[in-house]
Order: sequence, then structure tokens, then C-alpha cells
Amino acid sequence: MKKIAVVYYSKSGNTKKMAEFIVEGAKRNPDVQVDLESVENFPLEKTLDYDGLIVGSPTYYGSMAYQIKLFFDNSVKFHRKLSGKVGAAFSSAANIGGGNETTINSILNAMLIHGMIIQGNCKGDHYGVVSIGQPDDRVKDQCGELGERTSFLVKRL
Amino acid sequence: MKKIAVVYYSKSGNTKKMAEFIVEGAKRNPDVQVDLESVENFPLEKTLDYDGLIVGSPTYYGSMAYQIKLFFDNSVKFHRKLSGKVGAAFSSAANIGGGNETTINSILNAMLIHGMIIQGNCKGDHYGVVSIGQPDDRVKDQCGELGERTSFLVKRL
Amino acid sequence: MKKIAVVYYSKSGNTKKMAEFIVEGAKRNPDVQVDLESVENFPLEKTLDYDGLIVGSPTYYGSMAYQIKLFFDNSVKFHRKLSGKVGAAFSSAANIGGGNETTINSILNAMLIHGMIIQGNCKGDHYGVVSIGQPDDRVKDQCGELGERTSFLVKRL
Amino acid sequence: MKKIAVVYYSKSGNTKKMAEFIVEGAKRNPDVQVDLESVENFPLEKTLDYDGLIVGSPTYYGSMAYQIKLFFDNSVKFHRKLSGKVGAAFSSAANIGGGNETTINSILNAMLIHGMIIQGNCKGDHYGVVSIGQPDDRVKDQCGELGERTSFLVKRL
Repeated sequence: MKKIAVVYYSKSGNTKKMAEFIVEGAKRNPDVQVDLESVENFPLEKTLDYDGLIVGSPTYYGSMAYQIKLFFDNSVKFHRKLSGKVGAAFSSAANIGGGNETTINSILNAMLIHGMIIQGNCKGDHYGVVSIGQPDDRVKDQCGELGERTSFLVKRL
Repeated sequence: MKKIAVVYYSKSGNTKKMAEFIVEGAKRNPDVQVDLESVENFPLEKTLDYDGLIVGSPTYYGSMAYQIKLFFDNSVKFHRKLSGKVGAAFSSAANIGGGNETTINSILNAMLIHGMIIQGNCKGDHYGVVSIGQPDDRVKDQCGELGERTSFLVKRL
Repeated sequence: MKKIAVVYYSKSGNTKKMAEFIVEGAKRNPDVQVDLESVENFPLEKTLDYDGLIVGSPTYYGSMAYQIKLFFDNSVKFHRKLSGKVGAAFSSAANIGGGNETTINSILNAMLIHGMIIQGNCKGDHYGVVSIGQPDDRVKDQCGELGERTSFLVKRL
Repeated sequence: MKKIAVVYYSKSGNTKKMAEFIVEGAKRNPDVQVDLESVENFPLEKTLDYDGLIVGSPTYYGSMAYQIKLFFDNSVKFHRKLSGKVGAAFSSAANIGGGNETTINSILNAMLIHGMIIQGNCKGDHYGVVSIGQPDDRVKDQCGELGERTSFLVKRL
């Protein structure tokens, strides 16, 4: 059975809420196991067990929070071993134009450097889901779609 | 007297409306002349006459519209002559997370490659002003602030 | 039979040379048809016939040349129809630090906005292949790898 | 007297060497005091004392090392107080196309979010200086230029 981890750092709870919506969406595909993990409690070694990794961070100064960056910097010990896995990203931010897209792209860039496979969304939030403040219905829908799409991509590969 | 040009491409009218709000903001500094220019009618040579350039584009596939890109590609004939001038950027987009920040950053990157000077905004739209759909009051305020801040930076330098 | 198009714009010939190396690499997979296309002679409609699209541009002011941007801006008429296809990017530049990564990322961003699937390289040029000046042996190897990897990803999907 | 801090994180010594070259360049302007600081020993509060901040990081997974990200994340306690200061960035990387430009841009984005003022270089490394492996003569020159240019911009403002 294919497996996805949704890994997040959250301080206000907004990014965690998004992670939960993404888990719901990913579970629409019954052939994939989906786990929700706080980055602080997620042993790096477990990364190797997953076929897909969906990573979320608040928007702090235009790139992923240092807690998430620490995770990626430490992942160098598994370099080349994540190649070919599927990745996706999401972020919560305080403002429109507040650095949310560059935060998502900082996560996607780290995934590409690992040789991972990512897919955009031709509708809505193209690079990954963005919440401005607390997740609303629009964000819930986009999170569901991200989880579901990633889950099906993992299954296909 | 110092001079700023607000140069835009607009199809739906949203980017043009933003440009007009920015002109209003820039004129709050009476010591700076501010001109509004459609990129299609703006002779490239005139760029040299200005101390500051504020450039706006709709968000098309995550970077500036080709009409604006054509303007920058042609500006290679003035390479090194724009160094030290002040730059700023803005964009209108259809969706949150729709590529607006990467569009603004594509313009700022072109300006940095020309050796231009740019400033972020510690409040609101950090890299440059983003409108989701038609400009609302939030966008009007941010545009006014961008124009005014750029105008005062041009004056200081 | 799956099909890949390598689409480029080239003025000096450097980007074209890279495109040719990528075609060679992609042809290592005998199950995939690979076509080399100059963007100026490539009818937009043909995009729909391909399973993978590898796009190259010189580095002009930190994003894709306007000839390539025009191609993507026009592709809006096929929006949603490219979703799920595979994409990759490459660029030639004059200098290290000269805007080559941001050029490649401007192409990848456009592909993500189309809903396309991209993969990074955990070795060498992570986002896409970069040539500084004329393609050398390092670039030839990286181009071959990019073509081959993309070709196998197209086959898998 | 105006003051600049060159703040770096370095593991291999390459980024530190670049920092030293930048300090030399900045000191060509006798009217500006220039301090070299390792990020791990640099009290965040001291940031407020400087008119310019030049920040360097190795290229780790396409954005600044977490040690530098921690510095920026903590700097939120001074948000709005760095607005109007001058910023610049540099990075060392293992490979061409290895994520160096996106690393530099992750630092510049953080500076823009603080409201800082940055300038590109119309010659050579446009966004900030990149070293591929150990700094060579090209990198030494570019570092000198970055330090000198930043120093004169700090003086002008």
C-alpha cells in the first residue's frame, strides 16, 4: 500500500488546520495510507517509508519556517534516497502578497533538489494552497483537492 | 526635478486602475514629476529620462506578460545606463496563490539585473502590490503607499 | 507511442545546442518519440499532441525570453488541457549568478500553472540544466540526463 | 559614522571567505565602519545599530541555511525597525545550477519583507555573489564590488 505523510509546522493553528483538510482530501483515495505529522515529532528516518510528502509551513519572511528548514537541512543524510517520491506544499500567511507563494516555492525547490516529483494545479492556488489568515471554505476546498490530487499521483507512479 | 514613470500593461483594466492609484500616491511628494505610461506607447528611450520606474503587469502564467517582457528584453540596448535608478512593481491576478508574487518578483529581478534599487514594504504587500480581481480599498491604499514610498526614495537618492 | 517535444528559442545557438543534447538523451528511451522544435515554428496546437514538453530559453533579465513567454501567454487558450503532462526546463546564460535559475523557474512556474508534472534532479543542476556560455561536457551530460529522465517519467505516467 | 555588518553562516569556510572579501570591499569607503559577524555569535539586538546588513549562507536545499533562517525568524521582534536599512546577500554552492540564486533570493526576500533597500549589480552576479566551491578570483572581485557598492549606497541614504 502506498503511503503519504502530511508534515507541518504550526504556531497559530492555521497551518495545522490546513494539514487536516489535506489529509481528508488524500483519504478520498482508499488505496493510499495518509499520516498527519508535526515536523517536531516526525523522525527524519520515517521519510524513507513514504511515497509522497506534503509539507506545510507558515509564511515567515518569505520562506519556510526554520523548523521546516531544519528538517530539510538534516535530510541531506538521505540525499538521493527521496528521488522519485512525490511532493507538494502549502502555507498560511497573514496578508495577500505577504510572501506566501515564495514560501511554497521554497518548499517545492527543496523537493526538486531531492529529485522529487511535483505537480501544479491549473485551477485556484497553482503552486500549492495558500490561506490568508484562518482557513475558510475556499482554502478547505483547495486543501481537499491538493490532498486528493497528490494521492492519485502517488498511486499512478 | 526628479521624475518617475508608472509603466503598465493592462487588458482587463485592473492593472491600469492600480497604476492610476500609484500615480496619485507618488504625487503626494510635490517635488517629483510622475507620468503614467502604457508600455505599448512608451518609447524605450524615454526610460533614460526617469529616476524611478514602477512597472505593473497582469499575472500571466506566473511572470510578467510578454508585452512587459518584450520591454525589458529590448532594454538591453541601455544596459548599465539604468543602474542606480529606483524600481518597484505591481500586479493584478485572478486568484490568491495564482502566481502574483512570482510575477512581481520577475519584474523586480529584471530591475536588479539592470542594477536598479528596490525597497520592500514591511506592512501589507511586501514585494509589490497585488490585486485579486478588481482593485478594492485595500489595494488602493497599498498602491498609494507604494507610489508615495517610491517617490520619497527617488527624492533621497 | 508517447511523445516529447523539446521546444526552444535560441539567438546565439547555445540554447539550441542544449536542446539537441536533450533530444539525444530522451532518445535513449526507444519507446518515446522525441521532436526538436524552434518555438517560432511550433504551432501552439501541436502542444496538445505531446505527453511531455521540455522548454529552453536564453537567460534574459532573469526570466524566459519574450518569445517563450508569448508562447505561454498564448497557451491560455488550451488552459486545463495540458494538466497532467510532464514538463522540464533549461537555460543558457552569460554568467554564473546571471539569472539562469530564475529563468528556469519562470518556465517551471508556467508549467505548474498549467497543472503539469515536473521532477528535479538530485545531482547537478537541480531545477533544470544551466549552461554558462557555450555548452561544455558538463552541460552535455546534464542535458542527456534531463532528456533521459523526462523520457522515462513520461513513459511511467 | 554609518555602519555595515557582514553576517554569515559557514560550515566549510567558503561562505566565511566570501564574507572576508566583502568586508575588504566595503572598507574601500573610509566613511563607513564594517564589522564581520558569524550569525551564531551575533546578538539579534545589534542589528538595530547598523545601517546596512550583508548576509551570506551556503546553498542548502535552495534557500538560506536554517541558522540564517532562525536569525530572520527571530528578527520579527524588530519588525518595522529595519525598514529603510540597506541589504545585500551572497552564497556559496557546490554546483552551477545548484540552487544558489534561489538561496540569495530567499535572503533578499526576507530583507524586502523588513522594508529594506536592495540593489542589483548590472555586471556579473546580478542578485548577489555566488561562489561555486572555493572562492576564486572571479568571486573575490565580485565580493569586493558587492561590499564597495553596498557601502556607498549606505553612505548616500
